[in-house]
Amino acid sequence: MSTQDPNTDAREELIDLAAEFYDQFAGGQIPEMTLPTRTKSNIEYDEEKGVWVYGDRTSTRSANSVRGARKLLKAIYTIEFLANQLEEDRSSTLRELYYLSESWDNEEAQFSGQDESNQLVEDLEIVSGVTREDFHMRPEESGATLMGPLELREQTRRGEREIHCQKDVGEGGYQIPNNPDTIEFLDHDVDFMLAVETGGMRDRLVENGFDEEYNCLVVHLKGQPARATRRIIKRLHDEQGIPALVFTDGDPWSYRIYGSVAYGSIKSAHLSEYLATPEADYVGIRPEDIVEYDLPTDPLSDSDVNALESELEDPRFQTEFWEEQIQLQLDIDKKAEQQALASRGLDFVTDTYLPERLDEMGVI
Amino acid sequence: MSTQDPNTDAREELIDLAAEFYDQFAGGQIPEMTLPTRTKSNIEYDEEKGVWVYGDRTSTRSANSVRGARKLLKAIYTIEFLANQLEEDRSSTLRELYYLSESWDNEEAQFSGQDESNQLVEDLEIVSGVTREDFHMRPEESGATLMGPLELREQTRRGEREIHCQKDVGEGGYQIPNNPDTIEFLDHDVDFMLAVETGGMRDRLVENGFDEEYNCLVVHLKGQPARATRRIIKRLHDEQGIPALVFTDGDPWSYRIYGSVAYGSIKSAHLSEYLATPEADYVGIRPEDIVEYDLPTDPLSDSDVNALESELEDPRFQTEFWEEQIQLQLDIDKKAEQQALASRGLDFVTDTYLPERLDEMGVI
Repeated sequence: MSTQDPNTDAREELIDLAAEFYDQFAGGQIPEMTLPTRTKSNIEYDEEKGVWVYGDRTSTRSANSVRGARKLLKAIYTIEFLANQLEEDRSSTLRELYYLSESWDNEEAQFSGQDESNQLVEDLEIVSGVTREDFHMRPEESGATLMGPLELREQTRRGEREIHCQKDVGEGGYQIPNNPDTIEFLDHDVDFMLAVETGGMRDRLVENGFDEEYNCLVVHLKGQPARATRRIIKRLHDEQGIPALVFTDGDPWSYRIYGSVAYGSIKSAHLSEYLATPEADYVGIRPEDIVEYDLPTDPLSDSDVNALESELEDPRFQTEFWEEQIQLQLDIDKKAEQQALASRGLDFVTDTYLPERLDEMGVI
Repeated sequence: MSTQDPNTDAREELIDLAAEFYDQFAGGQIPEMTLPTRTKSNIEYDEEKGVWVYGDRTSTRSANSVRGARKLLKAIYTIEFLANQLEEDRSSTLRELYYLSESWDNEEAQFSGQDESNQLVEDLEIVSGVTREDFHMRPEESGATLMGPLELREQTRRGEREIHCQKDVGEGGYQIPNNPDTIEFLDHDVDFMLAVETGGMRDRLVENGFDEEYNCLVVHLKGQPARATRRIIKRLHDEQGIPALVFTDGDPWSYRIYGSVAYGSIKSAHLSEYLATPEADYVGIRPEDIVEYDLPTDPLSDSDVNALESELEDPRFQTEFWEEQIQLQLDIDKKAEQQALASRGLDFVTDTYLPERLDEMGVI
């Protein structure tokens, strides 16, 4: 990668791709595009980078059938659209791309559904090595919020904004922009960041002043975190050396939330280096907490049990810690929400639970 | 209502309620609580206030059965919790209240599920005339965002924050706090506000500079709007005289979003005066737009058709405009998303669609 303007870099990668198809044609070959196979059995742990990446198995999209040829035609039209978008320094959503294809002159190039255009953009990310954000494709929903002793500068279309994520924001916190790579970190007193699943718990921590007392940056995940949220956690960890901790409900779906922060998702293993923070640690709610603190629980449903069993087979969860916790949860047949800590009083989480756990983990 | 501290007011209303039960006991009566019946057939239009409110039909919760007595016991425990919370100037979520009940000394007073505690808090809102926000009950998820030429002062637990909703925020905008009554409006150049359903369209308007060009305050609804979002729209309209416009997808679920901004919901008709903005106008997507602009569409599903037919019978939608639009939609059997406007190009919405519609509506 050159050190030019990132718009120019991304644009060149796209045009290189189109040029490859051209060369294949010119050389008398049937054009094709080769991609890693995106299944659970084809992800493996990269020891050096500490993240999960695709293995060696590949699939090929070839123009040797009408269906395959149409796919490559759509890719070419999309590349042209993205290259123009970058040249004009504009952006669009995945959904807009899908609708916009209706205006393309070749009907064969139009998408038949949004799944198709979404998948194509992911394919282009993988083969070009450029992220969707650098194509200027915005997600539908924005990232979540930050609250803590961090000062940053955001480059907006309307100029630079310098914002302190406690002093310059309301109780709602600082809204993470769609592309957090427009942010420069200026200064901070953050000892660790705590990524919190639910809004209710995020508000509890802020109301109780946990961010002030412990120099903690509270990151609201809003359930399954958006790419922007995972990206800013990654950058804060790697660039500023801030330890990352994840605090969710105690059920298999929440462990997946932790997994997507720490290891990335199977669907987007090509982005692990960009989005995943493998050093992120899991605070709780742990099945052992359900036992130790006698938390109010719900019984596991059939789909909970299936999800836990599938996690036991997932290479990302094959560690001593997770195998023990998941086995314990299957044994006790219970799950608990993070707000269940309120059964011990509204201050229990900030006065007792988190300080004890973070001390035990060596964070404070 | 007195002009004291709102915490004291809300606390007194709650204690008055408890005193009423006490007096009923003391007078040898079986204690009871009377509430308006909360069904579609018991809401009616209040000409004077311009909102939909409950009619005259009532239901009674009486202690003349074990089940009824237990309900009133839970109400008393909840009143005590809320009164203490207000005295200490703290707050909590509905979910925390549910879990916290596990720590109450009387097992009969503990909630058996969150539906029960949610419903009880709504009952208390209705009989006391105090809103949940003034009980300091926070919603699970926070409100949405604002972007536009508005300067405000938010009273936070950490002191006052003065924020300009264009100059002091990133591209994500200003995050509306859980209780927007902590906000004071300082100054504005807003000609109208546009409440937008989807994040993709909100970002499109901001990227295209629509808020700057038209002095528009862009309010992101994030689907079905949170109470905080509806409340701030109401306050901006009533206190600052800013016209309110709603811009959603063109399907029955989106008309309900408009309905909840303009008329309030059936479940919370007791809050209409606090949350509803009956003067709010509907911009689109209108079924007539689908025809006029030849937008990409999806066919109506069975549940869409049922929802449209149910809207035709809903007193809130019995106007000439809505009857015509809903009938047209049933005839053409199609729906369209707001981002479908991208099929005419990414600037069509800000260069053509909105200016034409807003001009026609007399807004610009």
